[in-house]
Amino acid sequence: MITGKNYIGNEQSATGSKTYSTFDPKLNMATEWNFYEATEDEIDAAATKAYNAFQEYKNFSGSKKADFLIAIAEEIEALGDELISTYTKESGLPEGRAKGERGRTMGQLKAFATLLKEGSWVEATIDTAQPEREPFPKLDIRKMLFPIGPIAVFGSSNFPFAFSTAGGDTASALAAGCPVIVKSHPMHAGTGELVSSAILKAADSTGMPDGVFSNLNSSGIEVGQQLVLHPKVKGVGFTGSIKGGTALYKLANERNEPIPVFAEMGSINPVVALPSALSENGTEWAKKYAGSITLGAGQFCTNPGLILGIKNTSLNQFIEVLGTEIEKLEPSCMLHPNIHNNFEKGKQELSTQDGTDVIASYETAVDPNYGQQKVLTVNGSDFLENPKLHQEVFGPFSIVVQCANANELTDILHQLEGQLTGTILGDASEIKTFEEVVDALQSRVGRIIFNGVPTGVEVCPSMLHGGPFPASTDSRFTSVGTSAIKRWVRPVSYQNWPQQSLPDALKNDNPLHIMRIVDSEHTNSKID
Amino acid sequence: MITGKNYIGNEQSATGSKTYSTFDPKLNMATEWNFYEATEDEIDAAATKAYNAFQEYKNFSGSKKADFLIAIAEEIEALGDELISTYTKESGLPEGRAKGERGRTMGQLKAFATLLKEGSWVEATIDTAQPEREPFPKLDIRKMLFPIGPIAVFGSSNFPFAFSTAGGDTASALAAGCPVIVKSHPMHAGTGELVSSAILKAADSTGMPDGVFSNLNSSGIEVGQQLVLHPKVKGVGFTGSIKGGTALYKLANERNEPIPVFAEMGSINPVVALPSALSENGTEWAKKYAGSITLGAGQFCTNPGLILGIKNTSLNQFIEVLGTEIEKLEPSCMLHPNIHNNFEKGKQELSTQDGTDVIASYETAVDPNYGQQKVLTVNGSDFLENPKLHQEVFGPFSIVVQCANANELTDILHQLEGQLTGTILGDASEIKTFEEVVDALQSRVGRIIFNGVPTGVEVCPSMLHGGPFPASTDSRFTSVGTSAIKRWVRPVSYQNWPQQSLPDALKNDNPLHIMRIVDSEHTNSKID
Repeated sequence: MITGKNYIGNEQSATGSKTYSTFDPKLNMATEWNFYEATEDEIDAAATKAYNAFQEYKNFSGSKKADFLIAIAEEIEALGDELISTYTKESGLPEGRAKGERGRTMGQLKAFATLLKEGSWVEATIDTAQPEREPFPKLDIRKMLFPIGPIAVFGSSNFPFAFSTAGGDTASALAAGCPVIVKSHPMHAGTGELVSSAILKAADSTGMPDGVFSNLNSSGIEVGQQLVLHPKVKGVGFTGSIKGGTALYKLANERNEPIPVFAEMGSINPVVALPSALSENGTEWAKKYAGSITLGAGQFCTNPGLILGIKNTSLNQFIEVLGTEIEKLEPSCMLHPNIHNNFEKGKQELSTQDGTDVIASYETAVDPNYGQQKVLTVNGSDFLENPKLHQEVFGPFSIVVQCANANELTDILHQLEGQLTGTILGDASEIKTFEEVVDALQSRVGRIIFNGVPTGVEVCPSMLHGGPFPASTDSRFTSVGTSAIKRWVRPVSYQNWPQQSLPDALKNDNPLHIMRIVDSEHTNSKID
Repeated sequence: MITGKNYIGNEQSATGSKTYSTFDPKLNMATEWNFYEATEDEIDAAATKAYNAFQEYKNFSGSKKADFLIAIAEEIEALGDELISTYTKESGLPEGRAKGERGRTMGQLKAFATLLKEGSWVEATIDTAQPEREPFPKLDIRKMLFPIGPIAVFGSSNFPFAFSTAGGDTASALAAGCPVIVKSHPMHAGTGELVSSAILKAADSTGMPDGVFSNLNSSGIEVGQQLVLHPKVKGVGFTGSIKGGTALYKLANERNEPIPVFAEMGSINPVVALPSALSENGTEWAKKYAGSITLGAGQFCTNPGLILGIKNTSLNQFIEVLGTEIEKLEPSCMLHPNIHNNFEKGKQELSTQDGTDVIASYETAVDPNYGQQKVLTVNGSDFLENPKLHQEVFGPFSIVVQCANANELTDILHQLEGQLTGTILGDASEIKTFEEVVDALQSRVGRIIFNGVPTGVEVCPSMLHGGPFPASTDSRFTSVGTSAIKRWVRPVSYQNWPQQSLPDALKNDNPLHIMRIVDSEHTNSKID
C-alpha cells in the first residue's frame, strides 16, 4: 500500500506540510496518491542514519552484501501486480515494458551479487617486502578498494525501475559497501515507495543496519540540493537532464570537501551512415532506425537523435524510406505532460531553424501526452553553424544531416559535444577507408557501435554507459554494468601491516580465492 | 646550456618581455639565469601542437612509447654533472639527494616502460556474443582504456626531478598516450629546461611527433590558469599547496567542458603512538621521528606533522627524548627564501596558539634560508578546538598531541581533514584493541603504515599516494606508482565491431598476450 511517506531508514516519516501527487499521463489526470516532501530534518536524519550504518555495513563480507542484493530482487518480484500497475499508471509505459524493466532491475542486482561473491573486483594489489634491497629495503605494501560512504541517488524519469530506486546506482553503491539515500523521482513516487519497501524488507531479513537505505520524497530541487551539500553524503549518482546534472556537479564541487558526482545526462547519439550502408542496405537501416527513434516514445538516453550521411542518391532514398516508415508507426504515451510539453517545444524550435526541412511528421490527432514523431533534415554546413541543432530533443525525434563530403562529416563530429554512443553503419572495409570519421566519432563517445542501433544497453562487465562531458560528468566511469561499482570506492594502501589484521583480500593465504596482482603478476595463488 | 627560453614542442621560443631568475638559497642570491615567461600565444601554440601530436601519439604501440620513456631516462642521465649542479644550485638540496632523486625519476620512467611492454594495464574486458540468448541476443562488447588528450603538468617545489618536468605526472601521462605541457616550477626553471631538453632529444631519437612535449616558463599564476582553461588541454596534474591546487581544481570545473584535475596537496600525516610503542620502544621511535621530521628540511608532503598519544609517563618520556634528539640535528637549507619565510611564519603562528608548549626549538644562529626545527605539544582538547593547529607547516615542524584517552584520540582523527598517510606505532595486538582508532585513521588517509615512518614513498603498483580531500582532489587515484597512468585514460566500449578493426588489445587472438577479462574470467588466452 502506498502511504506517501518518506523512509528514514526503517522508519516511515511524514513531518512536512508540503505534499504533491503523481500523474497518470494516459488518463491525463493526477493519481490518488499524495506524497509528503521530505523536510530538512528528515534529510538530516536520513544522512545521519546512513553515516552510522556505514560504520557497520562497510565491513560486511561480499557474501553478506550479495545476500542482501538477491533478497532485494526477490522482494521486488514479490510485490507482484501492485508494483506493475503502479509503474504503468505513473509512467504511461505499457505493462510489457514494466515487466521487462523489472527483470532487468532484478538482473542487475543479481549481477552485482555474483560480482561480490567472486570478489576480485576489489583490485587487490600486493608488493611483497625485499628486506635485502639496496640502497633501501623494500617494504611490504598492499592496496585494495574500500567504500567511500553514504551515496545520494537521483533516479531518472524514463526508467522508473532500472535507473531509479533500486536501479544501477543503488545496486552498485550497496554492492560497494555504501548506504544509499534515494531522492525519489517526483513522477513515479508511488513506484519508488513500493520498491523502497522491498529494499527495506530485504535489509531486515538479511540483517542490514538501520539506515543502509532511505527514500526521500521531493517535488522540487531543494531536497536534492540539501542532500548533495550534507557533510555526511560522500558521493552522488544522477540520471537526468544536462541542466540538473551540471547544477548538482557544480554544487558538489563547491563543498568544503568536494565529492564525486556521476551524472549521466543523455546525448544525441550520432549515427554515421557510410556509403555502402545506404547503397546496399539503406531500406533495411531506414526501417530499423524508424523503430529505434520511436522506441519507448523516444525516451531513451541512447535514442539516435542525429544521423549523418554523405549526399548522394542513396542518402535521398534512405531519407525517403525513413520518412515513410516512421510515419506508419503509432505514437506512444509519454511519461508526463511536462516531458510531452518539452518535447513539443523542442520539436518546434528545431523545425524553425534555418535550412531544416521536414522528412516526416506524424500529424494525425492523438490523445493527450502522446508523442508525435518527427524527423528533420539539414545540410552539413547549416548544421555546423547552428549549435541549437546539436541539442537533444527528448522524445521520438531525429535529424538527418546531409554532408557535402567526408571532411565535412569529420568536422561535424569534432564539433559535437561528448556523447554516450556513436554508431557506424557500413561495410567493415569502410572503417579503414573512413578512418578519420571513425576516429573522430570514437573520440566523442563512451560506446561505439558497428551496424546496430544505440538503444539497448547490455548489463555486462564490458559496458561503458557514460561518455565525455556533457554525456556524463565523469567519462572514466560507467553507470551500467558491473564496473559501475568502481564509482563508490577508493583505494587504500597498507604498508608493513601485520598479516592477521589485513583485510581478507590482502592476506597471504588469499582466503577469498580472488585474482590479485602480486609482485606485478596476475594470480589467484597464495603467497608463500 | 640554459637559455631561459620556452620549449614549444621542438622549438625554443622567447617572444615575451617578462623575465625572472631562479635563486640559490645557499648563497642567498639570484642565479645567473634569466627565464622568459611564456606568452598567451606561446601557450596557445604549445596546446595546439600537443593536440595535433595527440592524433598520432595516441595510436602508438606500448612498445614504441616504452622506447621513448627509456630514452628520456637515458638522456637525463647523459646530462651528467651540469644537471646535478643546476639542481643543487636552484634547490639548496645536497648532491646526494639530487643523484638519488635522479635515480628515482629514471626508475619511474623505466617502470612505466615495463608496464607498457607488458600491456595488461589497459583493462581489456570482453563479453562475447550470445546470438541465441532469449529474449534478446547478446551482442559482442569489448572495452579498454584510451588516452584523453594533452595534459598540463604543474611541477612541485620540493622534488625538482621526481615530481616535476619528467616526474611521475609526465611519465604517467606520456605512458598513457597523452602529450604533456609542463608549467615549469619558477624555483627550478633551469633544472626544468635541462630536463626538457633531454625529453625532446629522446622524442627526436624515438620518432615522436613534434608537440608531444612542451615546457613553459612561468613565475606567477597566469600561465597556469591559461593552460587549465585552454580547450585543447584535457587534464591536469599538480603537486603543491592546497590553495594553488584547489584554485586550479575550481577553475577546471568552471570550463564549458570540465576536465579532471589531480592535485596532490600535502597533509600533516598523523602518527598514532599506541601505549606499547611508547612503553617498549619509545626511545627508538623518538629517534626515528626526530630524523623523519627533519629529513630534507621537512620538505616532504609525507612529513609527520602530527603525533598523537595517550597521556602517561611513557608519552612524557617519548616527548623528552624526541626533544633532545631533534635539537641535536643540524638544520638544512630550505628550497627558497619564500618557503623559509612561510615556514617561519607558520612556526610562529602555531607556537602562539592557546595551550601549546615547546618541546624543542633549534635556536642557534644559522645561515640564511636554513630551517630551524621546532616541535610543540598540546592537549587533545585544545587541539580539537583549534583548527589552526590542524594545518600543515611545510618544513621541519611537528606537534605532539597528548590525548586524555582513546576516545579523544578517535574524535581527533574523525575531525582531521583528509591525509596522504596515517601511521600506527604499536604492538600488532593493539590494532584490535584500538580498533576504533585504527578505523578512524584508515578512513582519513590514502596509505596506512604500521611501525614505520611516512616519509619514503615506494614506486610500485600497490602504492597509493593521494587521499581524501584536501590531501588530493581525487582520492580514487595515485600520483606515485604505476597506477598513476589510470588518471589520463577513459574506457571506450566497442559493440559488434569487426575483428580486424579492433585495437590489438581487444582482438580474439590476443596478439599482445595480455591479461584480459573474457566473459567474466581473468585470462591471457586467445578467444576461439
